Amino acid sequence: MVLDLLLQKGYSETLRGVSEASTSPSAVSPSLEFEMLYLIGLGLGDAKDITVKGLEVVRRCSRVYLEAYTSVLTVGKEALEEFYGRKLILADREEVEQEADNIFKDADVSDVAFLVVGDPFGATTHSDLILRATKLGIPYQVIHNASIMNAVGCCGLQLYKFGETVSIVFWTDTWRPESFFDKVKKNRQNGMHTLCLLDIKVKEQSLENLIRGRKIYEPPRYMSVNQAAQQLLEIVQNQRARGEEPAITEETLCVGLARVGAEDQKIAAGTLQQMCTVDLGEPLHSLVITGGTLHPLEMEMLSLFSIPESQSINGL
Amino acid sequence: MVLDLLLQKGYSETLRGVSEASTSPSAVSPSLEFEMLYLIGLGLGDAKDITVKGLEVVRRCSRVYLEAYTSVLTVGKEALEEFYGRKLILADREEVEQEADNIFKDADVSDVAFLVVGDPFGATTHSDLILRATKLGIPYQVIHNASIMNAVGCCGLQLYKFGETVSIVFWTDTWRPESFFDKVKKNRQNGMHTLCLLDIKVKEQSLENLIRGRKIYEPPRYMSVNQAAQQLLEIVQNQRARGEEPAITEETLCVGLARVGAEDQKIAAGTLQQMCTVDLGEPLHSLVITGGTLHPLEMEMLSLFSIPESQSINGL
Repeated sequence: MVLDLLLQKGYSETLRGVSEASTSPSAVSPSLEFEMLYLIGLGLGDAKDITVKGLEVVRRCSRVYLEAYTSVLTVGKEALEEFYGRKLILADREEVEQEADNIFKDADVSDVAFLVVGDPFGATTHSDLILRATKLGIPYQVIHNASIMNAVGCCGLQLYKFGETVSIVFWTDTWRPESFFDKVKKNRQNGMHTLCLLDIKVKEQSLENLIRGRKIYEPPRYMSVNQAAQQLLEIVQNQRARGEEPAITEETLCVGLARVGAEDQKIAAGTLQQMCTVDLGEPLHSLVITGGTLHPLEMEMLSLFSIPESQSINGL
Repeated sequence: MVLDLLLQKGYSETLRGVSEASTSPSAVSPSLEFEMLYLIGLGLGDAKDITVKGLEVVRRCSRVYLEAYTSVLTVGKEALEEFYGRKLILADREEVEQEADNIFKDADVSDVAFLVVGDPFGATTHSDLILRATKLGIPYQVIHNASIMNAVGCCGLQLYKFGETVSIVFWTDTWRPESFFDKVKKNRQNGMHTLCLLDIKVKEQSLENLIRGRKIYEPPRYMSVNQAAQQLLEIVQNQRARGEEPAITEETLCVGLARVGAEDQKIAAGTLQQMCTVDLGEPLHSLVITGGTLHPLEMEMLSLFSIPESQSINGL
């Protein structure tokens, strides 16, 4: 019904615009009409990675939420609070997915900011938040920032040559999904690089605590490039065991990236085999599987980050 | 030779790090050793879209260049200068590609900033600049920002489902390239969306002025979504005339975006046919050709921007 109404409204709407449907008196309480929901990208995680526009908005909003589950800050919440001069309300996945209305409510004529590491459109949860806001008649505005989806270009691989992005999740004893590997294969068949986003486990419960309904959470875990490469190699070996020709091998040229945009950023280019042991340090890590043929400029850029021959370099 | 040396150097180098090769006494004059080249993304074009970190660097660098050819600001150079409190040196394509050393030279112990609309790795020219700096022994640091490559997510199409990005150039009477269309086809075959970057003609010479060596430049031109859609439809018609089955049709669902991130941003979702006439206003424009099947959340987000039925909506 709301969707039908939305479909009838004016085209080429700006982000500021509120749909005709959602500003109708029946759909929205008049007291909400001056509120604005700001979705603000924090960029790559340091306090000063916020844009000047974003900082101005944060400083004038009545409530400021910090999304704390689809990515991770390179600095703590406290560092952000100090720099912004504002208290931040941590919003975990439960809160945003199940109690989003709390974020919108009780705001009357004041603005609310929702801060997201990277760009607000890196995760689908934020589309959902926008749709809910629109249904409540709350206009929204997005303040964009860098995310790994575009900052990955810093390794020298050309952004326009990236195919579909995949996520690699932590395997368990009983759950070892390989289906994402088809996407890597398709990308390589088309000469495209694959950005692999590596799993983040924040505020996860153990099976026992989940069953017993105890809200006790495990320490956060972040997949390293080493772990991702090991899982990838296991898939390669499984495919060989089944008589299939794997889309990548131990020798496939990959790029490991850690803490992109931070002072201590690390980038390493080498084979998939080398990615199993290369030391990139603390999280967050990302992995790129190259698309095969490289442009000479891409080769030259990757050479800046190549793992030295003493560590049995291949592929460069 | 430099490449060979670079290949031997340490792995997992940070952006701050200077290669062993380029800091060796033979490769670099000692007076350069304190200099840093900053590549700073300006984001989507408004003065306040720069990050706080970026602004701090701009204010303390001895020279600040503004790249003026791979993209375009939504505000003028003067607005940036006023907000930054700094004079900006316009760097056009000739200067960066042919006289890059001017950018590096005469800087001794001072820092130089090179400002780029969007993210510094949106265009290959900037990889080239980094490679030249590295060869001169000048360390560099990148300050990332949003670019159309990730901000395009604001239309609601999921970023990870974008395939290879294509560029659509202005056709002339004698040059009407269709080859990019194969990439659109591949993307659609794999269910992936295609971001089409639309041509920008800045500081171009007419053929006559070029032949006569007169440095007289044509007014800048920016391809609109309408023009891009018309060229795409002509390719579709040409393919049909040759008996081929085109990868897209008049009814294919597309999204036109204009001035993403600006206050007057416009987004319109509709058929390729509708993209020929939809009014999105001033530049810059971008076009997305959807990958066919959409996630329900993508559909719902696009409905916020749909062209109304009175304008013969199809595909949503």
